Amino acid sequence: MQKSSLIFRQLFDRACCGYTYLLGDVSSKSAILIDPVLEQVDRDLTLIHELGLKLKYVVNTHVHADHITGSGSIKNKLTAIGESGVKSVISTSSGAKADIKLDDKEELIFGGNQLQAVYTPGHTDGCMSLVDHKNGLVFTGDTLFVRGCGRTDFQCGNSSLLYDSVHQRLFTLPLDYKVFPAHDYKGQTVTTIGEEKQFNPRLTKSRAEFIEIMSNLKLEYPKMMDIAVPKNMVCGF
Amino acid sequence: MQKSSLIFRQLFDRACCGYTYLLGDVSSKSAILIDPVLEQVDRDLTLIHELGLKLKYVVNTHVHADHITGSGSIKNKLTAIGESGVKSVISTSSGAKADIKLDDKEELIFGGNQLQAVYTPGHTDGCMSLVDHKNGLVFTGDTLFVRGCGRTDFQCGNSSLLYDSVHQRLFTLPLDYKVFPAHDYKGQTVTTIGEEKQFNPRLTKSRAEFIEIMSNLKLEYPKMMDIAVPKNMVCGF
Repeated sequence: MQKSSLIFRQLFDRACCGYTYLLGDVSSKSAILIDPVLEQVDRDLTLIHELGLKLKYVVNTHVHADHITGSGSIKNKLTAIGESGVKSVISTSSGAKADIKLDDKEELIFGGNQLQAVYTPGHTDGCMSLVDHKNGLVFTGDTLFVRGCGRTDFQCGNSSLLYDSVHQRLFTLPLDYKVFPAHDYKGQTVTTIGEEKQFNPRLTKSRAEFIEIMSNLKLEYPKMMDIAVPKNMVCGF
Repeated sequence: MQKSSLIFRQLFDRACCGYTYLLGDVSSKSAILIDPVLEQVDRDLTLIHELGLKLKYVVNTHVHADHITGSGSIKNKLTAIGESGVKSVISTSSGAKADIKLDDKEELIFGGNQLQAVYTPGHTDGCMSLVDHKNGLVFTGDTLFVRGCGRTDFQCGNSSLLYDSVHQRLFTLPLDYKVFPAHDYKGQTVTTIGEEKQFNPRLTKSRAEFIEIMSNLKLEYPKMMDIAVPKNMVCGF
């Protein structure tokens, strides 16, 4: 049986079909939470407590339009019980407020583990992915989904930019890296870089075909957008 | 980065909050599917095809009451394209029809990997868990959930028996074995034996307290039961 230096949990919110990820360092118990959902904060904090983890960073991969981030609530609740050390994190390019703004290629270190920010704009202009090179994991936010990708029709979305982000910054990662998206609507939990390079129905197409596909999705205006975006621009505060 | 001999996928059905598990042997491509859901058969077969896997066994941990198994449909669809080798599997104690009926402690071998049947009656009288000792995984069906367990008020359910199954046959596994349940209603995907021994709100109680809790759940009659159980007694055929 394999031993890892990482405690890892994928958590799902059925309302927005969103994934939250908890990563903890086995030795130091230092932990990172990626893309928490406001309605699931109590579930997530209970798990963090039970696993004996100490939350260091709460990160958003981008300014979400479909749910309110749990970052603000988590900071408030932890501060209320005397654990005030957790820092909210988002990309500098998002323009959002947070304790820490990550530039491209900067790292978040938690114990003997680290996540590297890889800017992947296109769904929004401030999207970043987070790569764990030691364990071969990449958290792709709304940039790359299992056999799909995020929409590009609001929040400065840009199909051409998303195409470049995926092809130049994600598809250049090792083929066996596991891809964990911020959403899935079909019950799929994970994929790999190799699989998406081979089977993604949109991103295996040419740039021109991809832009054409994305301009014809005819998606509804997100129900939560006008509430969620302003809240998420200040990380839920 | 760790290499495994196992291709592993957890898949979710939002309608019944049910998990399906795909396990494939990296070398031989021989694969097992656990607890498939009828409505998700096309998703699952597409994934199996894309990963280059050859399905050897389709297993049900028990006769489900909340969804129709995908076993029958999978066998039909694979036979229709000339792949007739897949065998349906269920426990002997379930009394259900299947190509292979597993006795307690019998193994399913797929390439260099194997799953061992561990009888864990209580939710139904025919429930079994499946243990992968090499990778430290246990698929607990409706016996043990993340911080919960299956109900015991139909299909010959028996709280006392479920308590014994968990305490004698699951809680005796190594603490770091990962527990993958057949359902979760809160977006939790996995737990460990150690966590459940420490934090399961029902199964950390005494036997008498547990039986009392289970007799007062006041759950609704499952909507799908009268359709699902007869279909699942013949593995979806």
